[in-house]
Formats: sequence, C-alpha cells, structure tokens
Amino acid sequence: MNKIIAIQGAEGSNHHKVARDFYGTSIDLKECMSFDVLVDSLLDNSADLGIMALENTIAGSIIPNYALIDQNNLHIIGEEYLNIHHHLMALKGQGIEGIKEVWSHPMALLQCKEFFKKHPHIKLVEDVDTAEVAKRISKENLIGIAAIAPKIAAEIFNLEVIEDKLQTIKDNSTRFVIVQTEEPAVNEAVNKASLKFQLSHKRGSLATILNVMSDCKLNLTKIQSLPVIETPWKYSFFVDVTFEAYKDYEKAQAIIEIMAEEFKILGTYKNGRK
Amino acid sequence: MNKIIAIQGAEGSNHHKVARDFYGTSIDLKECMSFDVLVDSLLDNSADLGIMALENTIAGSIIPNYALIDQNNLHIIGEEYLNIHHHLMALKGQGIEGIKEVWSHPMALLQCKEFFKKHPHIKLVEDVDTAEVAKRISKENLIGIAAIAPKIAAEIFNLEVIEDKLQTIKDNSTRFVIVQTEEPAVNEAVNKASLKFQLSHKRGSLATILNVMSDCKLNLTKIQSLPVIETPWKYSFFVDVTFEAYKDYEKAQAIIEIMAEEFKILGTYKNGRK
Repeated sequence: MNKIIAIQGAEGSNHHKVARDFYGTSIDLKECMSFDVLVDSLLDNSADLGIMALENTIAGSIIPNYALIDQNNLHIIGEEYLNIHHHLMALKGQGIEGIKEVWSHPMALLQCKEFFKKHPHIKLVEDVDTAEVAKRISKENLIGIAAIAPKIAAEIFNLEVIEDKLQTIKDNSTRFVIVQTEEPAVNEAVNKASLKFQLSHKRGSLATILNVMSDCKLNLTKIQSLPVIETPWKYSFFVDVTFEAYKDYEKAQAIIEIMAEEFKILGTYKNGRK
Repeated sequence: MNKIIAIQGAEGSNHHKVARDFYGTSIDLKECMSFDVLVDSLLDNSADLGIMALENTIAGSIIPNYALIDQNNLHIIGEEYLNIHHHLMALKGQGIEGIKEVWSHPMALLQCKEFFKKHPHIKLVEDVDTAEVAKRISKENLIGIAAIAPKIAAEIFNLEVIEDKLQTIKDNSTRFVIVQTEEPAVNEAVNKASLKFQLSHKRGSLATILNVMSDCKLNLTKIQSLPVIETPWKYSFFVDVTFEAYKDYEKAQAIIEIMAEEFKILGTYKNGRK
C-alpha cells in the first residue's frame, strides 16, 4: 500500500518535490490548504507522514510551524534543504510574448516584481496557489496564461518553462522536515537532532548547556530563543545539533535532560545539508 | 523644529503609537508604505528617526528588518514592547448591528476570523492598511463601515470602539525599535545592548562567547543564529543582553570584539520590558 503523505499546498509544489525526493512517485498525496489542516490529517490518521517548511533564508524560522510540531508532539524523522526558484511556465510553444496574464499567489508575484517590470505587457492576477494554477492551465488548455511554480510542476503537468529564476532574491534555501505522530525506533545511523528546552533567566544558564554540548562533541547548527508566553524571564530554546557518534549525542541528551526544564527531543534524523 | 519620524504604515497605526509614546505629539510623521521606504527616508535624511517592528510573539523575529538595520548600519537607540490588540471602530452611535462592512488588511481579517464568524451579517472587504481605513471612515463620514485598528486610531479620528480584542490569539506582544543613521554618543545610563557577530562552525565557539558574557554579568534575553548566505558552516548570531553596570558591558564587548568575527553593536539603549 502506498504511503499517504500530507503536503502543504498542491501537487507540483515544493512540498510535493520533497515528498518525491524522499519517497519516490509511488505515494498518495494529500493536499492540505494550511499547515493546521496538515497536522490534523496526521492526528486523525488520514495521512501517514507530513512535509512542512520550517525555515528559509529570507524570512528565517517559521515559528508557527515549530509551535505546531511542539504542541502536537510530532516527531521529525527527516529533513531536506531546497533552493527555491520560481519558474514561469505555460502551454508549450508560446514564448514570453505570447503570455497575456500570469496568475499566482500574491507573495510569488511580489518576489518576482522586478522581472515583470521588464515585461509590462503581462497582466498580473492574484490567485490562491502557485502549483494549482499550473495544473489548471494544463487541464483547461489555457492559452496565453502562465503560472509561477517550481520546475516539478512543469514536469507533472507537461508545461514549458519560459523563464527560470524569476525571483529578485536568487538565494532562497528552504528547509523542509518530514513529521509523523509515532515515535520512531532508535536509529543510531542518524547524525542530527532537534531539541527544545526551557531555561530560567539566570545568568550563564545557556552557556552551561552549550558547554555540555561542546564537551560531548555536538556541533550547534541552529539556536533560537523564544520567550515563554505568560512566564516573564523564562525562555524556550530550539536547538539543532549535528554529531558524528550517536553515543556522544546520547550522553549529552542524558545530561541536558537533568539540567534543563521541559527537555524534549523533537526528532533525530539524517543531516540534510550537503 | 519638530523631529521627523518615519513609521511603517499610516497615522493611527501601532508604529504611530510608539512614536507618540517616545516623542509625544509634537512630531512630524512620515508615513512609509514599507520598511524599505522607511530606511530610504533615513538614509536620504528626509526623516530623523524611524520606528520598526522587530519581533512578535506569534511569528518570532522579523528577519528582513534585522537585515535592513544591519546592512544599512542603522543604530538602535530605544525599544518598546506593545501588546497588539485589534479594535473594531466606526462612526459614533452605530453599534455592531449597524455595521454592514469591515474594510481591513487581509492579515487583520484573518487574525479576527473567529470574531466575525459570530457576526455573519458583516461583509469582510480587503483593504491596504488598517489605520488608513479608520481615517477614511472619519474624513468621508462613512456610515455602516468599520475598521480594524489600534485604539490610538479611534482617538485620533474621533471614532467609537465597538469591540476590543477582536483577535483570536489574545497575547501578541510586539517589540518595536527606534533607529537612526547617526551613531549616538556613549550613554552609560543604558542597560541593554543588541549585538551581532559571526562564528565559524567550530565546536564550542558559541559556548565560549556566552561564557564571557556570563562572566561579565550580562543576561541573555534573546539569541538567534542565521546561516551566513553563501558561506557554508558560518553563522551570524544576533544577541540581546541586559546588564546592571555599563562597565560590565564594556568589558564583555572588548573581549567579544577580539574573539568573534565581524563583531558589531547594533545599538545600546534602555530595556523596554517592564
């Protein structure tokens, strides 16, 4: 039986690309219109796995998604970094001069506004989802309409990429994680962990924890503090670490568990950074 | 001569409230439709000071604003934390049953959707700015139309607040900073600093810096790592610290300057957290 994978957005989106990169094409896709719906589909078992964007180079951490993972006790079991590029695509054989309108999500239009300044004959029309427009163009044979979507959408819906890398900011690496409700079995082949803990606002408390990590040969790849709502002077820390030996990680984890409050492992998995 | 203060958004917005809290009502306001425009108005000297939101409880850090401050070498000279509440306001004497339409920014409508579910007779219309709608209702005497805006807008435009705290999530504390292009003179009465530095991905490098801070009696109130774009394994850290004695801060600063790369003081100012 195919795995049911919940993604944010539609078929042909970047979330779909991550699902395919991890699980191939023999999957059943569950398209979710929001991250909340995605999490609900995991909780009610209508999906086996979920793909969620967690941070990107432009905007930083997507804090609400951290909160969804934390509050619903999801487990991160994998990650992938994708370089996000917007491609302009349409039915084959039209060229940029044949395009009259582009339908896309307002955010994608905004990110590509410099490109469209050079092509003032194209009318920009706001739409709900980027990949879904690509599908509609294909299904309804819409001539003169283009979509802004990832390359995978052109492949799936048999469209032609007219221009790639439309966006003004060329470097937008986005980190996606794979989440599930069940706690996975211990796998000593992992080399990265996402941890969360709380500390009181006491001088040196974070330094002490980081010293433990350093002594145990863990490398910090991300740290972020968030004030604990309604508890002044208390902070949550979301920390990612990489390591070479699982036993080093196990040791650090055992010590931090004693030293910090509300210690929690959000997941252990294989480092997705090449 | 009045100070010219650039704010993101329009008169009656939360940014305006911060400007008034700091500098009173004898100010000239420069309304900017984006944070980029705001920074430009500081750089070309058409404004003396700028007010920028920097983080909030719901979404976390507003990374692009950190980048604007950093890349344009602005100096943070003050901060304020505001609890953001959406108020429904209209011309006086109408009551909720008299309201036919609410015009507001899509984000504000989204944050208040639970409230409007209870009032299905109200049509929701997307508009550009929240406070600017309040102004229009007042100026054009628009009966039956309501705005979602902060309380300050009702005061300024002589409107009546029909409902307060419309938003679903009640706790949204937002941190605003005051920025300028000129480096301010040393002021030993400050008790908070925003620092930025880079570290190589070497085990323990952050712990070492935090140990220095702790030894110098600095309290960490925020930390955030960001990968340095195009330099793998190198990280920038944005750190806020509070302290009691300026000389403690001076000492830590002198040490970190030697230990870390690209060390930079984004600003020293009075702690805005009560």
